[in-house]
Amino acid sequence: MAAKPSIPKGTRDFSPTEMSKRNYIFDTIRKAFHIFGFQQIETPAMENLSTLMGKYGDEGDKLLFKIQNSGDYFSGLTDEELLSRNAAKLASKFCEKGLRYDLTVPFARYVVMHRDELVFPFKRYQIQPVWRADRPQKGRYREFYQCDADIIGNNSLINEVELIQLIDYVFDKLNIHVAIKLNNRKILAGIAEVIGEPEKIVDITVAIDKIDKIGLDGVIAELKEKGIGDASIEKLLPILQAQGRNEEKLQIIAETLRGNATGEKGVEETKFILDTIKGLKIKSTLDLDLTLARGLNYYTGAILEVKALDVVIGSITGGGRYDNLTGVFGMEGVSGVGISFGADRIYDVMNQLDLYPNEAIHNTQIMFVNFGEKEAIHSLGIIGELRKCGISAELFPSSDKMKKQMGYANNHSIPYVAIIGEQEMNDGTIAVKDMATGEQKQMNIEELKKLFA
Amino acid sequence: MAAKPSIPKGTRDFSPTEMSKRNYIFDTIRKAFHIFGFQQIETPAMENLSTLMGKYGDEGDKLLFKIQNSGDYFSGLTDEELLSRNAAKLASKFCEKGLRYDLTVPFARYVVMHRDELVFPFKRYQIQPVWRADRPQKGRYREFYQCDADIIGNNSLINEVELIQLIDYVFDKLNIHVAIKLNNRKILAGIAEVIGEPEKIVDITVAIDKIDKIGLDGVIAELKEKGIGDASIEKLLPILQAQGRNEEKLQIIAETLRGNATGEKGVEETKFILDTIKGLKIKSTLDLDLTLARGLNYYTGAILEVKALDVVIGSITGGGRYDNLTGVFGMEGVSGVGISFGADRIYDVMNQLDLYPNEAIHNTQIMFVNFGEKEAIHSLGIIGELRKCGISAELFPSSDKMKKQMGYANNHSIPYVAIIGEQEMNDGTIAVKDMATGEQKQMNIEELKKLFA
Repeated sequence: MAAKPSIPKGTRDFSPTEMSKRNYIFDTIRKAFHIFGFQQIETPAMENLSTLMGKYGDEGDKLLFKIQNSGDYFSGLTDEELLSRNAAKLASKFCEKGLRYDLTVPFARYVVMHRDELVFPFKRYQIQPVWRADRPQKGRYREFYQCDADIIGNNSLINEVELIQLIDYVFDKLNIHVAIKLNNRKILAGIAEVIGEPEKIVDITVAIDKIDKIGLDGVIAELKEKGIGDASIEKLLPILQAQGRNEEKLQIIAETLRGNATGEKGVEETKFILDTIKGLKIKSTLDLDLTLARGLNYYTGAILEVKALDVVIGSITGGGRYDNLTGVFGMEGVSGVGISFGADRIYDVMNQLDLYPNEAIHNTQIMFVNFGEKEAIHSLGIIGELRKCGISAELFPSSDKMKKQMGYANNHSIPYVAIIGEQEMNDGTIAVKDMATGEQKQMNIEELKKLFA
Repeated sequence: MAAKPSIPKGTRDFSPTEMSKRNYIFDTIRKAFHIFGFQQIETPAMENLSTLMGKYGDEGDKLLFKIQNSGDYFSGLTDEELLSRNAAKLASKFCEKGLRYDLTVPFARYVVMHRDELVFPFKRYQIQPVWRADRPQKGRYREFYQCDADIIGNNSLINEVELIQLIDYVFDKLNIHVAIKLNNRKILAGIAEVIGEPEKIVDITVAIDKIDKIGLDGVIAELKEKGIGDASIEKLLPILQAQGRNEEKLQIIAETLRGNATGEKGVEETKFILDTIKGLKIKSTLDLDLTLARGLNYYTGAILEVKALDVVIGSITGGGRYDNLTGVFGMEGVSGVGISFGADRIYDVMNQLDLYPNEAIHNTQIMFVNFGEKEAIHSLGIIGELRKCGISAELFPSSDKMKKQMGYANNHSIPYVAIIGEQEMNDGTIAVKDMATGEQKQMNIEELKKLFA
């Protein structure tokens, strides 16, 4: 007998119920993207490794899934090279392609390849799976979906404002209460300059970013360990401890950064975004969070993250402004701003809070019991009429025992069951049972259609 | 400067316009699947190679994209094994996972793994990409979508009837005129037995399947080449030449197969399907095609294929009845019937005939011109109101020259442009330009909303 089959670790099957829920989330996000004027693209699952390698750091390169070349992938390799058993080096000989690691690098590649067809600003969205050879653990998968929206080729801060509105719109539709955390990489760079440690910006940002996890004392200890002097840390304290309303925090940081060009620009940008959003009245909380840092190599202006308020979970959406998306592919001067919705974490939040409306689950609306060939064929005609009206209807395909047929309807949460026996065939009616109440009524097809109108 | 990036051969990027068109096709099929009571599942892009290998023949095994193991994939390999340079054999050492080749084998694997959760009949659908390391050529890609619907765990011919209704429903919605070709593998098996060549059924079927391409003479030549005797070929002729209405053709074949149990069963099944569909009045043509064979190893009953009538292209949908979907994974006795819509060929047909309705292309409905910060922020408030009503609206993000802003609206086929200057801000109106007629009207927000009602 064949061994029981399994799937690769870190991957998942999705059942019909899970698919209904996931589709509800994806459809909500997709619809919001359209309402905000974003246009969809798709890129292939496989990219050339030359496109992917070197874009995610050394660690990222190791996490790429590489695809073995077809045919004789040994050609051109010497015995010596083979026997070196250098897995990383030989992988680049054995493999020319890899699975995409995120949607950003393929998007940059797309923009460069299609630059002559594009009109800027280009507002694109993309909802596709990505793959990472990460160690699987709870909530971390090797295949997961990203939902990205970016506006490129335009520097206006209106874009940042629109993305915050978009985040607010999506989570309002999903009924998830969120806080949007906002900061600006120019503020962080300014801080590093002002405290006299501009070359330590990476260490400072990495340390600050951990404040939620290790607390203020932990951050101070890590800064000391990285060689940041006491005087510099002293200057950082007001920022790390900044409390109060956004305006108050912005005031504190503005004072610290006075006279520093980069920092002042960051404060000005942040003030514009906060003031404009205030006038537009969004439902989510928008918090200036001076300790928000995000990954370093990428962002150059506003950065943001979204926290769910009613569930303990990491950031469920993130994004920011970047200056040079496509430079790595030889096309300079394309700046942009983008956000990425973390579909799998949003799915976890929705599940924990059970936020799906009833209509999110697509069930068959009515099942016809099968009493035999004659009745079944008669039923198929009626079912055809219902389907023409967009009503989801099915016939149990064989005349099995009533218990089995009703069990199927129950298991699939089908709300109505239609029964057509000889009597009904003769007088042109349908006996319709409401599965919730158990009530049964005779009706004709027009009355039946009205049940679902 | 970095080299200009490219994508792997046989793969494609999809632009916003292409995505709109593809989504129209996928959404139509998806909606039909729901209306007919099918439930969606998704499986991972990667499967264990032990799941995939040996399921598609030797040729298929070669066309699997294999994924290199992470970490040290050389471990356990002797120098001798390495230096053998046996690409196929070493691939199984270097790689444990592969990209799915179709949706059928992953579905069978899913059923076996989730057997305890499933209630039969299980009506599942699945719309996902598959990957094949085929030689790329016009209309053949290395990444393409399949849209499969199957009913498993039930033997009733009602399932075959429902699938034909489903095909009819989908192509009616897509406005593609099609002929559905029907045959039965039991008829083909019966023929091989009756002409005294039961062990040559594969050769016979392969030859017959080519009649469209090589004509009757070609088929006869190939049969002779395969060692089928003249007397046997003589008996085949009435079938190969059968003309006329379905009833007439069925009559011819019934006479040929009289007394052959397998063949008679095939005739009986086919008669039931034809008669029942006749009573249900579908829009497509349903043709009994005794030369339709399809791949051999798989199907055991009804087989069908769909041809577009107004375009010269291969089959755009196919399917049939199989007896033992999951036996290869150790779960016996699961029969089923399924169809697969060829999304990429349907896309080609739709494009050639330009069958997309206007509403298939999701464009922004109104763009607001940006005259500067004050006007932009004012516009964002109005845009927020429109979006709440589900109207797709966007603001040009920066106050660029009018020509550039209008060029963007034109390029994106946005039907209305809103202009808000100082005058409009003061009197609370919006100047709305109809881009098709050039006509411009002042209106308030309620009047604007009505434009899209």
